[in-house]
This record gives sequence, C-alpha cells and structure tokens, in this order.
Amino acid sequence: MSRKEIIELIRKKRSFLCIGLDADPALIPACLRHYDDPVLEFNKRIIEATSPYCVAYKINTAFYEAQGAAGWQTMLRTRSLIPSDALVIADAKRADVQHSSHQYVKAFFDRNAYGEGFDAITVSPYLGYDALQPFLNYAGKWTIVLALTSNSGAIDFQLQPCGRQGRLLYEEVIAVSRQWGSPENMMYVIGATHVNSLPKVRRLIPEHFLLIPGVGSQGGSLADVVKSCITPSCGLLVNVSRAVLYAANDAQFAVAAAEVAQSWARQMEAALRAHTELLKVS
Amino acid sequence: MSRKEIIELIRKKRSFLCIGLDADPALIPACLRHYDDPVLEFNKRIIEATSPYCVAYKINTAFYEAQGAAGWQTMLRTRSLIPSDALVIADAKRADVQHSSHQYVKAFFDRNAYGEGFDAITVSPYLGYDALQPFLNYAGKWTIVLALTSNSGAIDFQLQPCGRQGRLLYEEVIAVSRQWGSPENMMYVIGATHVNSLPKVRRLIPEHFLLIPGVGSQGGSLADVVKSCITPSCGLLVNVSRAVLYAANDAQFAVAAAEVAQSWARQMEAALRAHTELLKVS
Repeated sequence: MSRKEIIELIRKKRSFLCIGLDADPALIPACLRHYDDPVLEFNKRIIEATSPYCVAYKINTAFYEAQGAAGWQTMLRTRSLIPSDALVIADAKRADVQHSSHQYVKAFFDRNAYGEGFDAITVSPYLGYDALQPFLNYAGKWTIVLALTSNSGAIDFQLQPCGRQGRLLYEEVIAVSRQWGSPENMMYVIGATHVNSLPKVRRLIPEHFLLIPGVGSQGGSLADVVKSCITPSCGLLVNVSRAVLYAANDAQFAVAAAEVAQSWARQMEAALRAHTELLKVS
Repeated sequence: MSRKEIIELIRKKRSFLCIGLDADPALIPACLRHYDDPVLEFNKRIIEATSPYCVAYKINTAFYEAQGAAGWQTMLRTRSLIPSDALVIADAKRADVQHSSHQYVKAFFDRNAYGEGFDAITVSPYLGYDALQPFLNYAGKWTIVLALTSNSGAIDFQLQPCGRQGRLLYEEVIAVSRQWGSPENMMYVIGATHVNSLPKVRRLIPEHFLLIPGVGSQGGSLADVVKSCITPSCGLLVNVSRAVLYAANDAQFAVAAAEVAQSWARQMEAALRAHTELLKVS
C-alpha cells in the first residue's frame, strides 16, 4: 500500500486510527470459548465491527507466538481477514544480521498459505543499516523503525545523549536511519507518552508517517499528538489496543468495540478538519 | 540450566562450542527431501552427530518463522530433540513493552506441546529495563542481551559515543544492563569481528558468559576471542552455524558436520588447557 493510498484511506474514513489486535486468550469473552479457534473468531468480529473507523490494524506477534504453532496460524489467518482498505502492520520488532533479516522478510512480507503478507513491520534499529536493508528493499512494503517507545525503559538508552552531534539516541536513530529510505517506505514508532519530545520529532522528520502507541490506557493524549505532529497529509497513525478489544466482555463485545473505535475516529475527524485540508470538498 | 551446570558441561565435553541451527530448506541435502519434515530430520541428524562436541545449540527463529506455522512447529520439535546436556538458546532478538514481553516469555520459556521451553533467549536492549524484566525474572532461564553484534551495521549506533560517561552505546548497554541481573542469569552477545573491542568488554564484565558469533565464515578468529575474553570459568560460548550445517551436501552431511564440530572442539580444548584449570585432574 502506497503513501498516497494511506492518505486516501484517511480521507475516506475520516480517521487515522490503528487498532492493535493483541488478543489474549485469557481475556476474550466466554461466549467465544466453544469455537475451534476463539481468538480468530474474536479478531474476525472485532475487524468486522471496527473497520469503518480505522485505517490500519496492528498485529502484535508476541500474543500469537505465546500460543505456539497454532497461534502463528491464527495470526496469518487474522491477517487474511482484514479488508484491503486497511494497512496491516506486523508489530514484530524484528531485525537481525542480514541473512537472518532476509528470513524475517520472507516470514512477514511474502505471500503465505493463508493469503497476502503484511503491508508493514516494526523493526528495532539496534543492529544498524544492513539489518534493515532487506525490509527496506521490498517494494510496496513499509519498514516502521522503533525510535522513542512509550514504555518507562525508553529512558535507559533512547533518551540518553548519543552520537556525533549532541543528540539523544532516539534522535540519532531518526537522523541516521531516515537516509536509508524515504517517507514512501519508512515510518517511525513514537510513544504518545513523551509529550515534550513530539515537536522535536516532527522537526526532524516533517514528512514521515508516525505510528503512535501510548494513547489511552498508557496515559498519552491524542490532543498533544495532534498539536505537535499532524501534517497537511495527516502523517499519523494512532494506535489503540486494549480500550477497543476489551470495551465489553459479554456477547456485545464487538458492538462496544465499534463504539469505542468510532469515538476515537470522531475525535480524529475533528483534528483532520482543524489541521488539514483532507476533508475539504473540492 | 545454572551457570555451574554450564561450566560443568564445558569441563566434561572439553568444548565451549555453540552450534547454530539455522537450517534453510533450500540448502539442506537432497537426500532428505522425501521426509515429511526435511528440516526436522536434518536438525535431528546434525544434533545426534554433533552433540558430543558442543555445549549449546542456538536456534535462530527467523529461519523457522519463514516457513509459517509449520516452521514454528519444526522449531519446537527441534528444541525437544536436543539432549539435556546442552544449553538451548532461542536466538529470537525479541523484547517489547512489558505486557508484550510477558507473552514472549510464555512463547519461549514455558513448557509447550512438544516439551520443555528454551533455556535462554537473545534480546534487544533498545526498549530498556522494563522490556527485559519479564525474561530476567524467570527462574532458571538466561537472558542474553545484544551488545556488540558481528554485522557491519554495528557501527551505525552500537559503536557511537553514548551515555553519561563518554562510553560507546554498546558499552553503555553493558554498563547499565549488567545491574539488571547477574552473571547467573545474563549473558551478552559480542561479535568476534570486533577484535579491538574484546578486551574492553571483558574489563566491563569480567564474570559474565559471552555468546560470540562471527567466528569462521564471518571472519572473526577464535584465537583473538580466547586471548581477550577467556576467564578461569571459561566465560565463552562461541557459535558456529553454516560451517557445521553445510560441511557437506550429500548423504554424509552429518559425519562431515561432526568432523567440523570436533575440529572446533579440539581447538577449544587446547584453549581451555592453556588458559583455565577446568581440565586439570584434581
């Protein structure tokens, strides 16, 4: 999916919401327990209910790997259920020496037994350029680099002074790695919890899309993100996971999830109207 | 497996060799193609042939994920074939925000449908302490932190000045993260290709085991590693992958693999005799 197509989706759906499909078998409603694959059924209903309100789904590989080979199958089947009008991100946080990264590319980007591969993958920058090159070289796919994560441990290294020009490590990661690709095939993960860093991020990469976790249950604010980082092309994918998935725990869970997703989408529509011209009738 | 048990294995097998099980279906001998799971059969014969000469096996998850759900099953089955007198490392390079890392812990450390979980996992330090805590808190398991990797991209960030005391990033990673655990539950990945950095690593962490890739086909030298980093308890696991796995491509592949492994083990035995007292008869 191209950058232009993503922007068109944002315009069409009036939303820049990404929904994180991090289904924990222990937390899904009891009414689904009798299905052969309760997580798949849960994801299917969440996707059907929420897809009018989001432009991307993010599948966190950890939750599927925890269920072994069957979980991997559930993950790929879930990906194949997502309609073509949403970007599908493997939140895998991979990267390894080059010949191993080539294998991860195969695992996540290539077509597989259940259908299309993922449109995008999150990667760790720690191993440097040659580790990310196989992802970046894959035409039509997105490499989403971890820069400033939403967790407390971001302070241990990401927020330490680093590099040749007095930058912090995450700034150095952005400044160096932005030369490895372009706003057409790279995005960055920036946690909404780092309010004071957001304007600096946008100055470093005025054109790139940002994948923003940390809004909602982690305490980050959509208003802060919009204020500092929205661009004329939007430039944002804001992720919400648990608040949508677990909006209710009974048979009405999908309706409740749709309501939460719609409520986020309405706030995003207002932001698009206030800060971009994407929704103007031409 | 405890540190004491690892040292005892090194003494018993007179080797500190780790063999990387990175089987690429395209590269395994044609004589195995008729098996239901050729990679599993390949790994089984490699393990049977080489286990007298190595103290650890390292399973690179990338190669298994590239085969989808079936690959994940092959990976867990391979793990269950490894005898109890070897440390089994998931070379997974994982780590995520804490509630996701808990899922990775479940995927790799917990018992699964095919048997025991892995004894150890490689993790990326980029997300900081809270991302690694779930791995570190698991009693009896090892967390192996990427510090200085063997690839060319190590120069992009790992070898840049970083942190509060004029260290390089990989030194800062070691200096900070060594406080999160102990030599009883943490190791570090240090590429043999960085000859000049090896003495500095050992000064920073005189007690920790190092997992060393990059010897052999990548150009690193066992002699350099031993000279700079061997300790009275050995403190080294030196990995060889392709040179063992693909020593021959015909029906004699396992014999050839054993010969290569044995040849590395003999060099390691000489190093143990020269630099430690582990092989002295008491």
